Formats: sequence, C-alpha cells, structure tokens
Amino acid sequence: MTTYDIALIGFGGVNRTLAELIATRGGELRRDLGFGLRVVAITDLRLGSLVRGEGIDLEKALRLVPGAATFRDHGGSAEADNERIIRTCPADIICEATFTNPTDGEPAASHVRWALDSGKSVCTTNKGPVALHGAELKAMARQNGLHFEFEGAVMSGTPVLRFAKRLFPGLSLHGFEGILNGTSNYVLGRMEDGLSFDEAVREAQQRGYAEADPTADIDGYDVQLKVLILANELLGANLTLADVKREGISALTPGDLRQAGSEGRRWKLVGSARRNPDGTVTAQVAPAALPLDHGLAGVSGANNAVSFSTDLLGAVTVAGPGAGRMETAYALLSDIIAMHEARSRETANA
Amino acid sequence: MTTYDIALIGFGGVNRTLAELIATRGGELRRDLGFGLRVVAITDLRLGSLVRGEGIDLEKALRLVPGAATFRDHGGSAEADNERIIRTCPADIICEATFTNPTDGEPAASHVRWALDSGKSVCTTNKGPVALHGAELKAMARQNGLHFEFEGAVMSGTPVLRFAKRLFPGLSLHGFEGILNGTSNYVLGRMEDGLSFDEAVREAQQRGYAEADPTADIDGYDVQLKVLILANELLGANLTLADVKREGISALTPGDLRQAGSEGRRWKLVGSARRNPDGTVTAQVAPAALPLDHGLAGVSGANNAVSFSTDLLGAVTVAGPGAGRMETAYALLSDIIAMHEARSRETANA
Repeated sequence: MTTYDIALIGFGGVNRTLAELIATRGGELRRDLGFGLRVVAITDLRLGSLVRGEGIDLEKALRLVPGAATFRDHGGSAEADNERIIRTCPADIICEATFTNPTDGEPAASHVRWALDSGKSVCTTNKGPVALHGAELKAMARQNGLHFEFEGAVMSGTPVLRFAKRLFPGLSLHGFEGILNGTSNYVLGRMEDGLSFDEAVREAQQRGYAEADPTADIDGYDVQLKVLILANELLGANLTLADVKREGISALTPGDLRQAGSEGRRWKLVGSARRNPDGTVTAQVAPAALPLDHGLAGVSGANNAVSFSTDLLGAVTVAGPGAGRMETAYALLSDIIAMHEARSRETANA
Repeated sequence: MTTYDIALIGFGGVNRTLAELIATRGGELRRDLGFGLRVVAITDLRLGSLVRGEGIDLEKALRLVPGAATFRDHGGSAEADNERIIRTCPADIICEATFTNPTDGEPAASHVRWALDSGKSVCTTNKGPVALHGAELKAMARQNGLHFEFEGAVMSGTPVLRFAKRLFPGLSLHGFEGILNGTSNYVLGRMEDGLSFDEAVREAQQRGYAEADPTADIDGYDVQLKVLILANELLGANLTLADVKREGISALTPGDLRQAGSEGRRWKLVGSARRNPDGTVTAQVAPAALPLDHGLAGVSGANNAVSFSTDLLGAVTVAGPGAGRMETAYALLSDIIAMHEARSRETANA
C-alpha cells in the first residue's frame, strides 16, 4: 500500500487537527482510502521545526504547548526555517496552513513555490496564493508533474470547487452568487434581531467568529479573494484582485434591515461573478437585499453557500460550513485524496 | 472518436428534450465531452417504434405529433413493441424515460431488465426500478459488465447522488434530510400565504405542478421512493418500501402553518434516513416544523434539497431543481457522461 510522507507547514488549529485525524484514525483512513499518511516534518513560527524521515510521533508533537516549549527540546530546532525544511525534507506532499497577506499572498505563496520548486505537491487552505498567484502556481505544478490543490481556500472542506469542476459535465456555467463570509453573515443576522452594527460585531468577536480587526470580514476583503478564486477557477477568467469590485456591509443600518424584512427581503453580503455575452467575466462583492425565495436568502449564521447559474439545470446551490478547524483539516485530507486518485489514474494510463 | 448508439424508450417530454439537445447541440457536446451520440431506436406508446442503425433523423422524429401520426408512416411500426426493440436494436445504451408503477416499478423495471439482459447499458429517470429493484438491477449490470445509472431518479439533473458518492471521500455519512417533492413544498408555501389546503392543491394543479390525482405528491409516496433510493445507495441500507414510514401533509391546516410562523418555524415535508448506532438504517417521510436556521427551511416553491449529515464536515446541503423536462433530460446526459468516464478508466486499466 502507498504511504504518502507529508510535511505540516504551520502547526496551528488546522494542521494540528489534521495531525490528530492521522494519529487517531490513520488505520481507518488507510482501510477506506487505500493509502497511508506519515508526517515527516512539522514547522511552526512558535514551535520551531522537526524533521523525522521515519515519521514524527504525533501524539508527542501535539502535546507541545506553544510558548512553553519548542521542537528544540525534542531533537528539532526552535526556528521554523520554512524554506530550508520545505526544500529539503523528505515529504511527498506539503500541507500548507500558515497565514496569508491579502496584498501579496505571503508567506504562504513562497511556501507553495518552494515546495513545487523542490518536487513536492502542495495542498493549502490559504486563499492568498490561489487568488493572487493561482495561474503561476498551477503552471509550475503542471510543468513539474506535481499537484496543487486548494479546496479549503473557499468554504473550508465543503467541496464547492470540486462540485462545479466535477459534477457539471456538459453544462455551461453562466456565473455564481455566494455567501462566502460567515462573520458578516452572522452580523447581518444579529442586526435583523435588532442589534446595532457595532453591537453585532462585538458579539461576533466575543463568540470567536470575528477577528480583533474585523475589517477583512466586514468590508468584503475576504469575500473578494474567494470570488477571485471561484471566477478564475470555474469561469476560466483571468481576473486580478483590482477587477473584483468590493463593497462591505458597514453602511447598512438596522433600519435598512427592518425595511427589507417588511418587504420580504434579507440583506446579505453577496460575492458574485458572471460571464458576459462577449466572454469577459464581471465579478463583485456587494450587499444585496435578496427576496426570501432566493436560494441564498435562507443561509443563516456562520454558514456559507454558493449558487451556480447553469444553462440546462438553472440554479444549483451547495451550502455548508465556511470555516472551522475540523472542516478545514478535512479540506486538506480531501486534497490529498484527490492527489491519490489522480496519481492512480496516471499510473493506470501510463 | 467514440460514438454511442442510444435508444430512447418513451418519447415524452424528457426523451424528446434529450433528442433536441442531441439534434441542436450534438457538435458542441462532441467537442466538450469527447464522444458523439447517435439515436438508433425510439419507442413510444403513442408514436410506435422506429429503428435505424445508421441513425434516426431526429428533427423529423420530433415533428411527429402524437395522436396525429405514428412511426409507421416513416418506415417504422405503430406499436411500441418495447421488449423486441430493446432486446434487438443496435444500441449501446438505453435511455429509459417511460413511467413507473410505484407498487412494482413496471413497466420501467422490465425495460431495464431486457436491456441489461441483452447487453445494453441503461440510464433511467424512473424511481420505480431503482427503489424497488435497485440491488437486483445493479447486480445484473455488474455481472454483465454493463452500466446502470439513475441520477435523474432523485431531484432530476441536480447531481445529488453523485455529490454524496463522489465528493465525500474519507467522510462518514450519518444520514440525510431532504425536501424531495416540489408539489407538496409549493402547497405548503401557498398555505403559508393563507390559502386553504384544497385551494393550494388546486392552484398547484393549475400551474402544472400537481397531477390530476395529487396523492403521490401530497401523501408522501413520491418522497418515500426517493428516500428509499437515497438510503440504499448512500447509507448502504437494504431497505424495502415498507421499511420507510410515510406520512403526508394533508392533515396540516393553515392554522398549523400560522402557529409555526409565529414560532419562527416552517412546516416542510421531510424525507430522511439515519444510520443507527447498531448499523441499521431508519428512514421516514413526515412533515416537520423546521426552525428558520435549518438548512432546509429556506427551500421554497418547487425547489428540492438534501442536507447530508457527516462526521467531519457537519451538514452539507445541495439544492436545485427537482423536476423539469430539460433538467431531467440533463440527468440522462450526465448518466451517459458517467458511463463514458467509467469506460475510459476501464480501458486505461485494461
């Protein structure tokens, strides 16, 4: 049976959860999926780095408390040393789950580049590398005979990219509309309940949905990156971030939401794109007062959904979690499974 | 390039639409899908039957008006003669879109059997053969090295079966809840608007959603068959129709719907199944007053949706059309595409 050696770049919530899945359910996964997973390297800003060609003791690694210990005490280094580890560790696949700067996609983009440059396939949960450097990184993977998967970049493990890529054969996709940010959707829901914008944001922060600086969620920057990914991946567009018009929800008042409610509508922050008759693609993020019978009007709380507009089927919608540690760790697992399936096909065709 | 010879069994709305697709977009489909489609046989209760090994002139066939003409005037027969045509025509694939008796799945079940028995793969849009004889027919296809596909049996062309079969690798599916009948959902929506049950049913009939005898839709028989298919296909159950408890919506009053509305709930006819701790599967059809933040509460009008309960991802929902000629014709096309993909994989592995 095939065993893939993997490196976990970033040992925060997502990759820790993936490590827990492998540690506790590795046998089950091996039985169900036909391959094994062995973690041979971990790097983390706070914990440092550890490489073990024969496989890292995951239970031990998971017990390390960031801030109180580093991998130096366990035969590794106190430094993350990402470039060296990514380039030289004996992994087949890099699971990239660090962080990303929405301006240039760093440092995640470099992590992906180093991996592809040194012969390793990559799965990432970071939007930045895909939204801002997707075409370059996909070409790099193709040229090197490697895989670059990123289901978790949009709606965590909810298979929204694979849904549209795999299950619409023979259909033309005209465009999509999505609720792609749980925090802003939660805030709008609480404003419908009567809270002011500031109260709703504060509550979202207290519940752990919103960051200390909620700008990325509230002002639509997060959705903008996701729309860019979906438009380029699914509509064959070649857009850059500046092509996606962006407007957030901070101008909406409880009065606007009450007014919409009395007209049978709900305000939602909608990320959308459509293919124009001339073949170009227009994409945007903007609040919209959706009628209640719209497929996205019922998407409540921190849930996400994308509604695809097709020629023969009309609107088809996928809804599911948009975030979460386990949900995002599953995205990485589903990416590895996709690589395994593609590899099995390639082997069969060879 | 491969060309599949197909036979259209039943030349009503669905197969006529498939024929139109092939006639008007065959070249486009060939370019996008990598194979061609040629219709070599058509049978129909009213039009009779026609077999042409070199391919039937579809535009001519589509101009025939049932009741005013038969295929006898065009070199065929005035009789459908389904068994002989299915067994002897030179088709690779039978597209079965006749009708089905919910008690024994006939005549569709026999059409499928004759096809598989005579070396032809089958796609069908009929629930009966799959719900009532699924295990037998799937085994028959497997033993004969043939394909039996039926995406259109649940939610027309919305790829709900393929979604759960293909996009949940590594996940455990605990169960599902679905809104699987557009007519009853439309009736409940109109009762929320204040109509009585009888008024709402009459309106659904006038709009062409409900049959003259609305029993199958209103009393949950239609949903019962779909739940049976989903439970057996996706949860690996081995249920029969009698195992699926069934209750329709006819006992609900406008007062019940008002009451639910005042409590932030909506009555929906829900078909569901779940895997029990002992491995058995419990399935049922029953009205339920769903809270508004439930993934199915917002499914309005004639739309359908299924919400899957998974271990790592929680609830993931697919919503889309549950009926329609084009939507169901696309289901058949998607089945043929699935057969082509499977055949390509088999050839590669050989």
